[in-house]
Amino acid sequence: MESKQVSASVESSAVLPGDVMDPNCPSRVVLRRMGERWTPLVVEALADGPLRFVQVREAVGTLTPKVLTQTLRSLERDGLVTRTVFAEVPPRVEYELTDLGRSLRGPVQAMRRWAEQHVGAIVEAQDRYDAR
Amino acid sequence: MESKQVSASVESSAVLPGDVMDPNCPSRVVLRRMGERWTPLVVEALADGPLRFVQVREAVGTLTPKVLTQTLRSLERDGLVTRTVFAEVPPRVEYELTDLGRSLRGPVQAMRRWAEQHVGAIVEAQDRYDAR
Repeated sequence: MESKQVSASVESSAVLPGDVMDPNCPSRVVLRRMGERWTPLVVEALADGPLRFVQVREAVGTLTPKVLTQTLRSLERDGLVTRTVFAEVPPRVEYELTDLGRSLRGPVQAMRRWAEQHVGAIVEAQDRYDAR
Repeated sequence: MESKQVSASVESSAVLPGDVMDPNCPSRVVLRRMGERWTPLVVEALADGPLRFVQVREAVGTLTPKVLTQTLRSLERDGLVTRTVFAEVPPRVEYELTDLGRSLRGPVQAMRRWAEQHVGAIVEAQDRYDAR
């Protein structure tokens, strides 16, 4: 039901371009998803090719298996990641960025570079604010 | 206390470059802040120049005054936005991006454009996932 409503909104926004400044545009939900805590880190972890669950977790660090499962499932549902089960014993499961997922790397890297470059200035600003 | 610890980490990371893939690097906190629900929308709202509180709220839409106050205060604390009070009756208060805040526009616009371009593909992927 909810999904149907979103589809209807997207159809009408196929005429108009998406606009995150419009509260009713579903692109606002997409922007929000991109900003979720682990999304950019998992996209970066998968940048160099497919990984198994434990390898993604090692690359990202400090998230519980439960939260990583939820994050990967969301990314799979959004069409950004594929989950492939190989018929081995024990079964091997690999996660890989789709073409759509790979297209997210540009924006994610822009965010990442900004964060890494400006973290010092931000912490200084916070110290000044807290001292006043 | 917490702020002191972050400063210490930044000092040591002044030698090494920031790395969001390192769970102990404060740039990870910055990346997370950039992804907070209203941060990119407020940055976009302020892109064309200073605005009063009600004008920011009109531009972003659908957030309560309380949440907008919290968002603007966080952005001010991070050194991304200035808050200027003009001695008028009633006092006029304007919010404006700092140079640091303006430097965030590039990454925010990259995220925004990606969301607006790919919202259709994501909603289709979600429908396929939910139907299987």
